[in-house]
Amino acid sequence: MNECGLTQKLARLIAESRPERNKEAMQAARMGLTDYFASAFAARDDEGIARLWSVAEAEGGREDVPVVGQGRKSSFRQAALLNGYLGHALDYDDVHSDVRGHPSTVILPALLSAAAAGGVSGERLLAAYVIGVETMARFGRAIGAEHYLRGWHNTATLGGIAAAAAAGYLLGFTEERLQKAIGFAATQAGGLRNQFGTETKPLHAGMAAQAALLAVKLTEAGFGGTLHALDGTAGFFGVYGDLAAAEANLLDGWGESWRIVNPGLWFKIYPFCSAAHHAADAAVLLRQKHPLAADDIGRVDIVFPTGGDAALIERQPRTGEQGRFSVEYVAALALLGEPLSVDSFASKPIAPHLLELLPRIRRVYDDSIEPAPHAVPKGRYTIVEVTARDGRSFRERIDCPRGAPGNALTPEDLRQKLEGALAAEPARAAALLDTIARLQSAADVERLLELL
Amino acid sequence: MNECGLTQKLARLIAESRPERNKEAMQAARMGLTDYFASAFAARDDEGIARLWSVAEAEGGREDVPVVGQGRKSSFRQAALLNGYLGHALDYDDVHSDVRGHPSTVILPALLSAAAAGGVSGERLLAAYVIGVETMARFGRAIGAEHYLRGWHNTATLGGIAAAAAAGYLLGFTEERLQKAIGFAATQAGGLRNQFGTETKPLHAGMAAQAALLAVKLTEAGFGGTLHALDGTAGFFGVYGDLAAAEANLLDGWGESWRIVNPGLWFKIYPFCSAAHHAADAAVLLRQKHPLAADDIGRVDIVFPTGGDAALIERQPRTGEQGRFSVEYVAALALLGEPLSVDSFASKPIAPHLLELLPRIRRVYDDSIEPAPHAVPKGRYTIVEVTARDGRSFRERIDCPRGAPGNALTPEDLRQKLEGALAAEPARAAALLDTIARLQSAADVERLLELL
Repeated sequence: MNECGLTQKLARLIAESRPERNKEAMQAARMGLTDYFASAFAARDDEGIARLWSVAEAEGGREDVPVVGQGRKSSFRQAALLNGYLGHALDYDDVHSDVRGHPSTVILPALLSAAAAGGVSGERLLAAYVIGVETMARFGRAIGAEHYLRGWHNTATLGGIAAAAAAGYLLGFTEERLQKAIGFAATQAGGLRNQFGTETKPLHAGMAAQAALLAVKLTEAGFGGTLHALDGTAGFFGVYGDLAAAEANLLDGWGESWRIVNPGLWFKIYPFCSAAHHAADAAVLLRQKHPLAADDIGRVDIVFPTGGDAALIERQPRTGEQGRFSVEYVAALALLGEPLSVDSFASKPIAPHLLELLPRIRRVYDDSIEPAPHAVPKGRYTIVEVTARDGRSFRERIDCPRGAPGNALTPEDLRQKLEGALAAEPARAAALLDTIARLQSAADVERLLELL
Repeated sequence: MNECGLTQKLARLIAESRPERNKEAMQAARMGLTDYFASAFAARDDEGIARLWSVAEAEGGREDVPVVGQGRKSSFRQAALLNGYLGHALDYDDVHSDVRGHPSTVILPALLSAAAAGGVSGERLLAAYVIGVETMARFGRAIGAEHYLRGWHNTATLGGIAAAAAAGYLLGFTEERLQKAIGFAATQAGGLRNQFGTETKPLHAGMAAQAALLAVKLTEAGFGGTLHALDGTAGFFGVYGDLAAAEANLLDGWGESWRIVNPGLWFKIYPFCSAAHHAADAAVLLRQKHPLAADDIGRVDIVFPTGGDAALIERQPRTGEQGRFSVEYVAALALLGEPLSVDSFASKPIAPHLLELLPRIRRVYDDSIEPAPHAVPKGRYTIVEVTARDGRSFRERIDCPRGAPGNALTPEDLRQKLEGALAAEPARAAALLDTIARLQSAADVERLLELL
């Protein structure tokens, strides 16, 4: 079983990969970097980050790694924890449909912590990020839908392993070291979806990034661990997912194309859970075409395929923060023409006129509707149907929301997203965009870290 | 579901518990403390701990909490990691049959880190330890055998939650804070048995202790998290075990007796996996009654009930460290009259004359044999049957090995174990034993920490 099992094959493929030769992949990585920083800077004044700082201060540690937008540094593990939290705090960061979760807010914080020791080139940083997304996307597909549906948070459970693989690649680990680092990360895999709707959901990204850092540091220290963590019925896939599926498809066609390009990262234009983006686009269209006052709306039906709203756990949100997981709140905002902005999803009470509309919005499941071939994620659609009090009804259907692969944001969109997040510091935004655009040398990486 | 669910009920029972009123429980806690320190001091020169120090040094941090036998301090999370590792490094620390794992090496390092901030009494420390063992034992039974058999390491997956509960109790957390801390720990639950036989197995204890510290620090910082982490199908038991069983028996009869007393901790006289202790006792008896030279041994059958040797993953060990999980190696040592000492299980090659005997030792499974009513763990026995080359055969059967509840070590045995671990420092051993014996005030806790 252990003779060149899954772990070793994966490690070998990673060690031999050269994604820097693929221009599209490198460009996609630059876009992902831009989006991560936009998402993290947008959360710089988040209340949760102050609480995490109080923990980090009590712990102490070397001030080696910058924490985005904080003007201060912390130790490699703390920075991974905090940068992971920041990237995901507003649920504004990228998702990947294969992952069923958020890749960059785990992988990039781990890479920033690993890169801060110095000596890694910008090209290698981007390549390592491509490897991380590739690993996480393949794990997401191999582990199957059941993993998420049972209650695990893929961002956390898969992210730590992917980030350890990426950081190991960044540091030029041998095949054997990669195997071991993957094992150290796999044995830290955790994160439950019942934390959704709390600050711990974004913290999961940080926890996974932190686990990846411990994994690479243990590996560098020569600490003992299994080289076969993914193999067999007692391995990661056997315990957390479906081993047979993983053996069949985890590594199939590795390197033929990169999943950061195809299907690609899904960048968000809205700061809330991606499962509500279809409904948001539909509601925005309805508002544009048929604006109704709140009192004129009789009923709103939001139609999903069964399970399509699993991540949207809040049906009666009371705060904007809870509203990040409420399709009802998102639809209410959009139908009344209010902004789908970071401010609307902050941790403060939802205004009474919005709360008043929520009971008229209901979820409907209809599996007789055929999803579109270009649907993202596969099999998903959302229909919003508004019935006015005067009897008229209007509907919009979205299969592939804005930002999703096939309806992707452009580099210009992402430039605007970063500039928006750094609205008070346009020079810093420009410098960051410039550094990302020409990221190549080790000096570029140093410059990037200085700008955080 | 969330109205006074499992998490809240558990938190309320913990917050209202006063185990310090139970003399037997407090005495059992003193014995457990003695055994933990004996196990950790015995591992003070372990190679793995030096590797962990290199990681901790790179990270930096406040030097607040002593690490056992190291003559130096580290931050609360690092100390939890290192002290957890040390206690379990030699697999010499206590087990609890309800846990199917090692409680004290997770709970006590977490308590030491939490206590180092000062102001907690020795009585409270012992009481918190009783609470931790109680919680972990109840989790072990509630989660069912399937959890371990699927591939999780109960010491890690259950230990972090129990240690967070214990540390929360130590710090006088309210019911609501306990609920939240349990959630922060539950969402960090991980640890795979495929790391058995490597340094990462004992590190799991440290990882769980570290997770518990992060859990209580996040709680103190007011960080947001679910109050209902154990509840419902997407809660900890639903995801990692059997929710119906947990709801039926997790909290049944809480406080009527304490599981640190009944069935009690199982202290080890041998520094290897407890699943091999039955065989060790049997082989020691065989050696006493019928000593045979290696060449005179024709065959050795070691008979288990099916699954009774699941933890004994090494059938062809090459080092003493691997031998901690090899019933073959343990039996070979004992049958040839060699010491079952820490030195025999160090990370160095096994001597050729022992290796030569291993192929003649085989495992047999016989489910037709009735386990004894007093068997520990329940349903377990091991028979060692030696067939000499001259045709004679001898057998010994053990249902309850030395150290197990029902065949327990005495305080005097534990005194000797600690004195053995601190053989070069008898005055320190005496001071430590004296401090544990009269542990009551906050000053006693300070004295205890100074002696580590």
